[in-house]
Amino acid sequence: MKTGENNKNLSLKDRLFTIVFENDTHAGRSFDIALLWLILLSILVVCLESLPNLNQDYRTILSGAEWVITLLFTIEYIIRIWVVRNKLRYLKSFFGVTDLLAILPTYLSIFIAGSQFALIFRVFRLLRIFRILKLGRYVGESYSLINALKASRYKIIVFLQAVLVVVVIVGTMMYLIEGETSGFDSIPASIYWAIVTLTTVGFGDITPVTPLGRIVASMLMLLGYGIIAVPTGIVSAELAKNRNIKASTRTCPNCRLVIQDEGDNYCKNCGLQLEKKENNKV
Amino acid sequence: MKTGENNKNLSLKDRLFTIVFENDTHAGRSFDIALLWLILLSILVVCLESLPNLNQDYRTILSGAEWVITLLFTIEYIIRIWVVRNKLRYLKSFFGVTDLLAILPTYLSIFIAGSQFALIFRVFRLLRIFRILKLGRYVGESYSLINALKASRYKIIVFLQAVLVVVVIVGTMMYLIEGETSGFDSIPASIYWAIVTLTTVGFGDITPVTPLGRIVASMLMLLGYGIIAVPTGIVSAELAKNRNIKASTRTCPNCRLVIQDEGDNYCKNCGLQLEKKENNKV
Amino acid sequence: MKTGENNKNLSLKDRLFTIVFENDTHAGRSFDIALLWLILLSILVVCLESLPNLNQDYRTILSGAEWVITLLFTIEYIIRIWVVRNKLRYLKSFFGVTDLLAILPTYLSIFIAGSQFALIFRVFRLLRIFRILKLGRYVGESYSLINALKASRYKIIVFLQAVLVVVVIVGTMMYLIEGETSGFDSIPASIYWAIVTLTTVGFGDITPVTPLGRIVASMLMLLGYGIIAVPTGIVSAELAKNRNIKASTRTCPNCRLVIQDEGDNYCKNCGLQLEKKENNKV
Amino acid sequence: MKTGENNKNLSLKDRLFTIVFENDTHAGRSFDIALLWLILLSILVVCLESLPNLNQDYRTILSGAEWVITLLFTIEYIIRIWVVRNKLRYLKSFFGVTDLLAILPTYLSIFIAGSQFALIFRVFRLLRIFRILKLGRYVGESYSLINALKASRYKIIVFLQAVLVVVVIVGTMMYLIEGETSGFDSIPASIYWAIVTLTTVGFGDITPVTPLGRIVASMLMLLGYGIIAVPTGIVSAELAKNRNIKASTRTCPNCRLVIQDEGDNYCKNCGLQLEKKENNKV
Repeated sequence: MKTGENNKNLSLKDRLFTIVFENDTHAGRSFDIALLWLILLSILVVCLESLPNLNQDYRTILSGAEWVITLLFTIEYIIRIWVVRNKLRYLKSFFGVTDLLAILPTYLSIFIAGSQFALIFRVFRLLRIFRILKLGRYVGESYSLINALKASRYKIIVFLQAVLVVVVIVGTMMYLIEGETSGFDSIPASIYWAIVTLTTVGFGDITPVTPLGRIVASMLMLLGYGIIAVPTGIVSAELAKNRNIKASTRTCPNCRLVIQDEGDNYCKNCGLQLEKKENNKV
Repeated sequence: MKTGENNKNLSLKDRLFTIVFENDTHAGRSFDIALLWLILLSILVVCLESLPNLNQDYRTILSGAEWVITLLFTIEYIIRIWVVRNKLRYLKSFFGVTDLLAILPTYLSIFIAGSQFALIFRVFRLLRIFRILKLGRYVGESYSLINALKASRYKIIVFLQAVLVVVVIVGTMMYLIEGETSGFDSIPASIYWAIVTLTTVGFGDITPVTPLGRIVASMLMLLGYGIIAVPTGIVSAELAKNRNIKASTRTCPNCRLVIQDEGDNYCKNCGLQLEKKENNKV
Repeated sequence: MKTGENNKNLSLKDRLFTIVFENDTHAGRSFDIALLWLILLSILVVCLESLPNLNQDYRTILSGAEWVITLLFTIEYIIRIWVVRNKLRYLKSFFGVTDLLAILPTYLSIFIAGSQFALIFRVFRLLRIFRILKLGRYVGESYSLINALKASRYKIIVFLQAVLVVVVIVGTMMYLIEGETSGFDSIPASIYWAIVTLTTVGFGDITPVTPLGRIVASMLMLLGYGIIAVPTGIVSAELAKNRNIKASTRTCPNCRLVIQDEGDNYCKNCGLQLEKKENNKV
Repeated sequence: MKTGENNKNLSLKDRLFTIVFENDTHAGRSFDIALLWLILLSILVVCLESLPNLNQDYRTILSGAEWVITLLFTIEYIIRIWVVRNKLRYLKSFFGVTDLLAILPTYLSIFIAGSQFALIFRVFRLLRIFRILKLGRYVGESYSLINALKASRYKIIVFLQAVLVVVVIVGTMMYLIEGETSGFDSIPASIYWAIVTLTTVGFGDITPVTPLGRIVASMLMLLGYGIIAVPTGIVSAELAKNRNIKASTRTCPNCRLVIQDEGDNYCKNCGLQLEKKENNKV
């Protein structure tokens, strides 16, 4: 039996699975790209709905667009549940929960006013973009980024602890030095100011006016300017030793585990016999 | 036949080509440097013209200067079209379009008031500076910079996607937390604030005032302060493995392709037989 | 004699020492974690007490919480003095002084109003967190961070000197250029502005308005944007050559020196014979 | 003849030369440290004199202090001219000019009011600190920093050109988009804003208010946040391959050239026979 014939003999359910869950066929990729644009459109609609001086006519159009998008997402959600073999695993997975969160707020907005802003969580669906990019070079790149960040996490936690100790101490000092007249009206507000300053954001809503306050602020700024080197150095050092990881585009149709070795015949997780695929033209 | 004699036998057209398109002769370099100063002067004129409280006398002088510069650029543009063999290729090239954009707005300003500000696109002509620097060490350096950025592009796109997902979610959260009183009057405005904050710019035109808003803002700032490490790390890691690339100063007089190997006798692109050059003293 | 029996034969004092000063037993770790939460709680209490519009009822509750925490810290302090063999060394050590500073302000607040804000120095006790993390991978990571910073210190001092020379000169220039109308009302204020600008914090409380002032400010900003590369490069280069250092979890019960080699039988510092420990499961 | 005896036979002029120009003797180091403190004190005096609400009594004291410091600096300047063999070379050197600039403004202030603020150029004298640090590890470190910056200069110039092209184009765009109402009242002001934004300083004195202006600003901020990676990456990559350079503490008494090889017997520059020195205890 040739691998080509294999694909032709697939049932509707199997073909839908290939389209909505995988993207190494032409149809699968087209579906993912269409979905991505729909997600971006839905985010744009929610953003526009929040504008304060919006014309009532536009508001009606946006509301209509939202219901259309929600219905499309609902159909997609139902198909996903239907075609996946291990339904519970999908429902509890990150993408399963995200897919539900993307449609629920619109239905809830019938009962609770304002809940449609929760639709912005549709942005999480954008993470599906990484699936579309799977065929290309993006996955290997994002794996090496994530690995560098993972390898750096203990160093970064240690660094953040040091930063927190500094902002609490400097925040309290500034509260005692500056007092309420210049906006340092409580220790939490002063700690907030210290974070704004140390991270070199510098809003300017709270600023020191006393000479001593300015000296302490100057030292905090120089510290913040200097120690930005630390997380940067950590990540640079990790990335300098990164290795590009080859990413697979296959997932097990039963448990949705990513099949890492293209030559695997059985799913490592659930033992399902896997269909052989043609080589991807990367 | 010696290479020196070759150069003497060039026609006016060929000699002009060497002056305006290449820069490994003394005349070519002088022309490029004069052109650079003229471009800088023209940008200065446009900037000064925009000053609101400008005296009418100065305005007349600036307007005159603009017309003189435009005429000089027009003459240069005509010479370029005349001397290049493959005229269409030049007209459609980046520098061809830029050269046209540099003169068009002045002529248009006779018919449409205000269009002379489009002259600022003359700044793109500044990119010719890289041609002037070709003889020196700049080209190799900029090639290694561009290569490092090119090699990093997939990582940087992945990073920017993550940043966009973060600012959309945090922006919506802040819109719901802070509300209109503190300037977060729509989701787009809040996303704009989130970008201002994450990138550590911190204008301060919109700032959180509620305790919860300040906590979310603090976390966003620490995130922005920490993840600046990611693009930096990516580029550092790439630059650490850079190799200096030797840059050629020859271009094919027919198709304007850069001749990469000094020893080449025929253009790789159009097959034109190339003149032999003396060794550049780099 | 087996090492297991050794632990059973310990006196109450020895067992308390293991709990409060070490953390490679279950009890020791639990104690440290409980202590950490208590420290965090006490900082939260001090922060809340500083809020300006606080209800009198809440103020009473917070005051009560502070006294309870202070009593617990006092008991812990007394136990620490009791169980440690070389008491004077502990009292004069960083953690000894911190432990005293954590309880003193509450008692002093009976006599001197406002002194309870000094309680914020309890935040230094948070540094004990590094002890809790000793068992895991954190210590090695923080050692490699600290080593990288230590190795960079001369370079960073040279860099800071250059920064200070720049801000003093630019500050004076801006004082002379801008004058009092735009907030540059003295050289110290202008130097403060130069630090705010060079470090890219940019509060906006003092901003240049004259053309020349803005040109100087632009150059200072570009300088600040460019030379942030210097500390970052220094630390990156150091971290790139870091070695993970294995951290020990044992301290000498007599002089509290950290025992670096797990196989040591005698304290390198005071010669005390050390108990053999079971291998930690890291 | 032993090297020890050599030192004893030096004339007053030679001994003064060793004290004021070199610092590998005890007297030389003490002189340099005293000088450093005097420079810092003189800067402090100038800073304090600029305070707007200063009491007349304090002003008299500060004025007196300034004259005392100027007299001390004048004596030092005269000694330096007397003891150096090649006087013209010293007078024209960076430190020679600085030493003159440090005393001239006080004398000029008798004739021209306000000229004493030029005294702030005394801060350049602080660069003598690097001489004091010569004995230690600082020189090697600062050489490796300076070398890394030198090696990066072509890359950094290319980068700055790209930055300038970006800020000119974005500045003009913002001028056309935002107009005068939101502070973008001329192209130079808009370019200034673009630099403030790209460098992530973000004063907030000029901020976009139109939707399109905010979109362009967001892209500029993300660009600025992303490309800070470039100078950082350049310097990191250079510093990663740095070699520590051993610094010499000897200068030729005739031409003041630094003697790089401790074993040299004659000055490479002027051929003067050099005294042998004892080994420095580094």
